[in-house]
Amino acid sequence: MTEFIPPNTRFFNLPSPFAMKRGGELHNARVAYETWGALNAARDNALLILTGLSPDAHAAAHDTNPEAGWWEAMLGPGKPIDSNRWFVICVNSLGSCKGSTGPASIDPQTGELYRLDFPELSVEDGADAALHVVRGLGVERLACVIGNSMGGMTALAFLLRHPGAARTHINISGAARALPFSIAIRSLQREAIRLDPAWNNGHYDDTRYPESGMRMARKLGVITYRSALEWDGRFGRVRLESDRRGDEDPFGLEFEVESYLEGHARRFVRRFDPNCYLYLSRSMDWFDLGETVGGDVMDGLAQIRLDKALAIGVQTDILFPLQQQQQIAEGLRVGGTDTSFVPLESPQGHDAFLVDIERFGPAVGRFLGSL
Amino acid sequence: MTEFIPPNTRFFNLPSPFAMKRGGELHNARVAYETWGALNAARDNALLILTGLSPDAHAAAHDTNPEAGWWEAMLGPGKPIDSNRWFVICVNSLGSCKGSTGPASIDPQTGELYRLDFPELSVEDGADAALHVVRGLGVERLACVIGNSMGGMTALAFLLRHPGAARTHINISGAARALPFSIAIRSLQREAIRLDPAWNNGHYDDTRYPESGMRMARKLGVITYRSALEWDGRFGRVRLESDRRGDEDPFGLEFEVESYLEGHARRFVRRFDPNCYLYLSRSMDWFDLGETVGGDVMDGLAQIRLDKALAIGVQTDILFPLQQQQQIAEGLRVGGTDTSFVPLESPQGHDAFLVDIERFGPAVGRFLGSL
Repeated sequence: MTEFIPPNTRFFNLPSPFAMKRGGELHNARVAYETWGALNAARDNALLILTGLSPDAHAAAHDTNPEAGWWEAMLGPGKPIDSNRWFVICVNSLGSCKGSTGPASIDPQTGELYRLDFPELSVEDGADAALHVVRGLGVERLACVIGNSMGGMTALAFLLRHPGAARTHINISGAARALPFSIAIRSLQREAIRLDPAWNNGHYDDTRYPESGMRMARKLGVITYRSALEWDGRFGRVRLESDRRGDEDPFGLEFEVESYLEGHARRFVRRFDPNCYLYLSRSMDWFDLGETVGGDVMDGLAQIRLDKALAIGVQTDILFPLQQQQQIAEGLRVGGTDTSFVPLESPQGHDAFLVDIERFGPAVGRFLGSL
Repeated sequence: MTEFIPPNTRFFNLPSPFAMKRGGELHNARVAYETWGALNAARDNALLILTGLSPDAHAAAHDTNPEAGWWEAMLGPGKPIDSNRWFVICVNSLGSCKGSTGPASIDPQTGELYRLDFPELSVEDGADAALHVVRGLGVERLACVIGNSMGGMTALAFLLRHPGAARTHINISGAARALPFSIAIRSLQREAIRLDPAWNNGHYDDTRYPESGMRMARKLGVITYRSALEWDGRFGRVRLESDRRGDEDPFGLEFEVESYLEGHARRFVRRFDPNCYLYLSRSMDWFDLGETVGGDVMDGLAQIRLDKALAIGVQTDILFPLQQQQQIAEGLRVGGTDTSFVPLESPQGHDAFLVDIERFGPAVGRFLGSL
């Protein structure tokens, strides 16, 4: 599985055993992370980035890996998340296959891959693991926790479970709980993988691999990550040139939008472990910040203590709809946090934070600049 | 395939051969239809209903089949489509498996099921077939053509190809062309069916049947037929009682919304022929009213001649978004048709016309009452 891990990523060994929220524990588990900039003497300039489902810890280029990262335009010297000022830590989620321990890792107790013997994974486990990394790097109190998408859930769990661990928070296209439309989408993605005979109850390998199931799951993902509005302008009803069609197949690719999905799916299916996908996807469905406090989601948000926060989202997001970022802002305000809610006009849907840096950059940069 | 056909549905034999728009022809083809009310002496009180992808011709109860139909609350004596006044005809789409000739029918030239040897099906073929039924019932000029969803496409094709065949039109949650988001969804639904090994390039039977593929396709359909807003209120994060879960399966059903999808899927998979599904689904992707006139979609709409029209849709529809009904209204107005555009507040998404009769009923009833 080493092909999933970015070169020169770093690893932090979690305390062993590491107890999981829903039961079970991990032994000799680790979290992959990368850093940018330098921790100052006061140790008060550290930022933590928590990611969506699929990214690794390589958010941007740095000295030991000059390759562009998944948030290259956002993070670096002089960029909105300015590594000249901030010491930035990005962790790969616990349960992922990009360096952190997950279902695709070896279980030290058996010497075999965990596969479905990995304990049930919660968003909260990822939050706890991230805290260990932060503390291990000598940071008692983060200047800011930034969470995107699933990372927005992880960030809220982090803040609620670890009071005082951060002064401020930016929640980007996140949610304080999963709602039924996104649960339905993710459930269907998981079903596509599980229905693929090659999934084989988690016992696949490189030669017998649930490629079709992963392709379906990814295509459905991409459909819900973008927006109809963007695609109307970008693809319209443009057909593929005949040499790019499979003319022998009467139901093969015909429209540009189909080819776009196919390209995305092909790039993804062998670069993300199917069992890890299932675990991380299910952890999002389970997430409800209210549960932690035995109340509703607003109670959970209101118990978070911060100096300042920012919740950003876009109107065209169908997976983490804008009302969910608005709810985060409202709930944090109830708890006394000075919180801005910034709805952006991006047409790109849920993925806008990755591509519409023109809008997201200034919003993030302004907030960090005000600290 | 007789189990798909409602009892006492009627059949109209199309002229043989019946030429298909994209080439090929059908021999001894038929269209299933049902009627309500009586044609008056002037023969000017006939309405035609064109359906979405899956419905049969049994839109409502009548003398020879008292079972409730798929639009029971809308159609009948004293209802918004009032069969005391109107002679109402509903046809099952050409290419469907509910009585009309389609890929699940016997090809008279071979004595075998057509399967993928059925000629390429276009929305326009369905429109032409419907016209034959109307003429065969002695109607030269319809008082109104009502089209829902795919039937809204069929209706526009009908009106453009057969000038003078109708005086007015109600387009409900329809579209004048397919756009990339809905193409992407339908393409993925077709891929789910085609990836099921039991589909076997169209050569399945009742014992070896692409049940998983159909289940995936239907679930994705249901997700896009409803809305996140409705589901938030209806399902929230409610869990299934433990006796309704498959506890042995770590990724089995857990939330009510998953069980709802599963129930819908189970009811559908054996009641709609997979090859027919593929053909009808693809015909929608191909549909572009502009193509017919060698121009853009507004040119196509502007060439339709009617006395009066109504375009209705709902804000929460992600499959046939409201802007598409607005476009229909604008295009028809350019052509001189007195057209109302009525956006409704239904939370139920694309399916609202089937379930939100409280809003759709008065809108349809008022329009028909004004004729």
